[in-house]
Amino acid sequence: MKGERMSGGLDRLFNAGSVAVVGASTNPGKLGHQILANIVLGGYQGRVYPVNPRAGTILDLPVYPSVADIPCDFDLVVAVVRADLVPGALREAAAKGAGAGIIISGGFREAGRDDLEDELRAAAIDTGMRLVGPNCQGINYRPNKLCASWPLVEPSGSMAVISQSGTVAATLAGWAVDEGLGISATVSLGNQVDVCETDMIEFFAEDDNTRVMALYLEGAKDGRRFLEVAKRVILEKPMVILKSGRTAAGQRAAASHTRSLAGHDGVFDAACRQFGIVRAYDIESLYDSAKALEMLELTGGERIAIITSSGGCGILATDEAEQCGLTVPPLPPEVAAELGRAGLLPTAILANPLDLTVAPAEHYAAALAAMDRHGLADVYLLVFGDPIPGATEVVQRLKARIGACIAVAYLGGGDVEKSERLSMHAAGVPVFPTPERAIRAIGDAVWATKCRLGKGRDLR
Amino acid sequence: MKGERMSGGLDRLFNAGSVAVVGASTNPGKLGHQILANIVLGGYQGRVYPVNPRAGTILDLPVYPSVADIPCDFDLVVAVVRADLVPGALREAAAKGAGAGIIISGGFREAGRDDLEDELRAAAIDTGMRLVGPNCQGINYRPNKLCASWPLVEPSGSMAVISQSGTVAATLAGWAVDEGLGISATVSLGNQVDVCETDMIEFFAEDDNTRVMALYLEGAKDGRRFLEVAKRVILEKPMVILKSGRTAAGQRAAASHTRSLAGHDGVFDAACRQFGIVRAYDIESLYDSAKALEMLELTGGERIAIITSSGGCGILATDEAEQCGLTVPPLPPEVAAELGRAGLLPTAILANPLDLTVAPAEHYAAALAAMDRHGLADVYLLVFGDPIPGATEVVQRLKARIGACIAVAYLGGGDVEKSERLSMHAAGVPVFPTPERAIRAIGDAVWATKCRLGKGRDLR
Repeated sequence: MKGERMSGGLDRLFNAGSVAVVGASTNPGKLGHQILANIVLGGYQGRVYPVNPRAGTILDLPVYPSVADIPCDFDLVVAVVRADLVPGALREAAAKGAGAGIIISGGFREAGRDDLEDELRAAAIDTGMRLVGPNCQGINYRPNKLCASWPLVEPSGSMAVISQSGTVAATLAGWAVDEGLGISATVSLGNQVDVCETDMIEFFAEDDNTRVMALYLEGAKDGRRFLEVAKRVILEKPMVILKSGRTAAGQRAAASHTRSLAGHDGVFDAACRQFGIVRAYDIESLYDSAKALEMLELTGGERIAIITSSGGCGILATDEAEQCGLTVPPLPPEVAAELGRAGLLPTAILANPLDLTVAPAEHYAAALAAMDRHGLADVYLLVFGDPIPGATEVVQRLKARIGACIAVAYLGGGDVEKSERLSMHAAGVPVFPTPERAIRAIGDAVWATKCRLGKGRDLR
Repeated sequence: MKGERMSGGLDRLFNAGSVAVVGASTNPGKLGHQILANIVLGGYQGRVYPVNPRAGTILDLPVYPSVADIPCDFDLVVAVVRADLVPGALREAAAKGAGAGIIISGGFREAGRDDLEDELRAAAIDTGMRLVGPNCQGINYRPNKLCASWPLVEPSGSMAVISQSGTVAATLAGWAVDEGLGISATVSLGNQVDVCETDMIEFFAEDDNTRVMALYLEGAKDGRRFLEVAKRVILEKPMVILKSGRTAAGQRAAASHTRSLAGHDGVFDAACRQFGIVRAYDIESLYDSAKALEMLELTGGERIAIITSSGGCGILATDEAEQCGLTVPPLPPEVAAELGRAGLLPTAILANPLDLTVAPAEHYAAALAAMDRHGLADVYLLVFGDPIPGATEVVQRLKARIGACIAVAYLGGGDVEKSERLSMHAAGVPVFPTPERAIRAIGDAVWATKCRLGKGRDLR
């Protein structure tokens, strides 16, 4: 089983039942303290063994002077010590049964110390351990409540963020938390001495806690294997990838950063189109499109109906939809007639986009129900352009009745907007800050779904 | 003086010394209450006369049963009554010396009552009053502390938002307040029976409180005059315009909304390029680019240097810069040598983008100062990809020393990010939520500046 061998052992990493933290510190300003604290405060249920030559206790946990001094076996070692101390610690951990390591420490290849990185690689090969990093921001896997990373992110969601940049991973996780969504995992890959982006893709493809993968990549460690795995996995689980190095200057910069060969951007691009991988072009759309794929259940049909309290936002959404390959079908006379009897305001403009003008939330429900009865669209966007009392309740009800083919753009609403976003997310309906971002995310999700269902891969 | 005649009278609107609110209500749920409350709570210093047939008092102000009952002359009338009552109220207000009116009320052309709108137009012509609306969200002009609009927005800034959509105006104002920037004005144009977008452009071109105009338009009331005025004004004051109706479906929707003929989008687009008007393609970039033009003082030179704690974000910024027509010049050996002596971390990657890795804020200062001594770039982007203590202080100091050619992207920082954004904005340095949004805004601002300074209008 090739797949198993290649991504094998990652279960020992993500579902480790016990963890040693080498380089644990009493100093709250040090990473060796933060990582330990985040594991403990993040709700991890397994045993935790801090290691520091000065021993004592940290966060009420007894500290062991060395890995060898830990009195029993453990599964995972997290290293936050000087680079030259890491290879030895890994071998000691392997002797204690550890099957995986996360090397937070920097000072390897990226600092010109290829020799130390070679030692790490040798340790991985000799011991059979799977290593993440070095020079990374760690992993956070919520199903195991294991935050061996920073910042501390606790809320559980179903988006896995896999990143060659710690900052991009932390940014997506931060947004997901702010919006009440949470994540299933963040993975910072670092120098990828052993575990690479493709291993992670294989793991999360099988992970029932993850509905979508959001990836930031600068290149693939093994381009051929990446393409093989991506092609297979995408049929089961959606992926959105932000790949940098699109331009010559960006490729030079990427070569200095992860030293991964950015490769021909055109090849990557063509593969995305062919396989049905959504390619994002900035951090926000990486997040938005992954969120849409996480929360919406689509058919791949590209007809969208837009219901709005803001005429302007309806037009902006329509423009964007047309540009994204969605279609905004005109309202057939029979639907217009039914909407005319639905008790909307006399100022409402009965078209698609349907401009309710400054209407109560119930008008959204009446309008969407009428449209749905006539099968007008495959996906619906509700635009709330003002604080509208009862909006969440209506959205909840519609989702229960019509299904997860409804997205919301909520704007111009100040503090009400923020609380409504949280409650709509709790109801499982994705909310975007502008009509354009909503439409682009929906467009990506529709396209990816269409590809997956084999309805055609040449929409773009 | 053609310009004076055309935009004449708007001073009576924006700088009105006294206001009557027709349709003032005691019911906090009604717009007639909210508008009155926002005028009073917004700090307006002139006299305010609520008008309602049921009289009494509202917010401790005596209420007059009709406009004719107001005991003295006043400058501005705000109408929030039933459409058919508006024309009469306007004529009464004119008799009391009012030179301007804001018609919040809907129920005119947009509701098929062209007859009532004709009556409004006749009242404007007969009385010489300048009218904003009808069917609009009013105006907020902070220099006169006059918020005859909603929501209540108090903080003063130097961005004027002029919009054919009340929601778009409220959204931009909301973001500006959230970010600690404020606005100089928001103007919701509504049906434009009299005052149109071009009148507003002429007013704000001359307004010393406004540094930049951000406009949402569906069409121009008089295309030829719009082009004439825009061409003249842009030499003095930057404009960013989001125009909807880019697609056929969008144009149909725009025709239903403001009934303005969207016109050939290509003509508008060509005019923007020729004159140096930034054309935004979504609500967020309208805001971002206007913010960059408001806060940055540029030369029009397109060389950018990027200093970052996140290698990934540096590459993303570089890609985006190249795509926006900015150039990311490589680091000459003498600058690299000086940076090598500047006390940066050994892990720093001495290039442009300059990846400081996880460095203290002072390293940004040392690096930027060295680059500036060598005149490496025309504009600088500092990317903070983590909460970095002392970042604001460093940014403040750099701005004082090097000038307003520095922008910041701050991300992955959670709550620290939010407070740092406020304090950097207080220091006059624009902060963007991602490197890509920062670069796109800078790119627009550089291009507009280059056009204005006559260095060339064919960059794009």
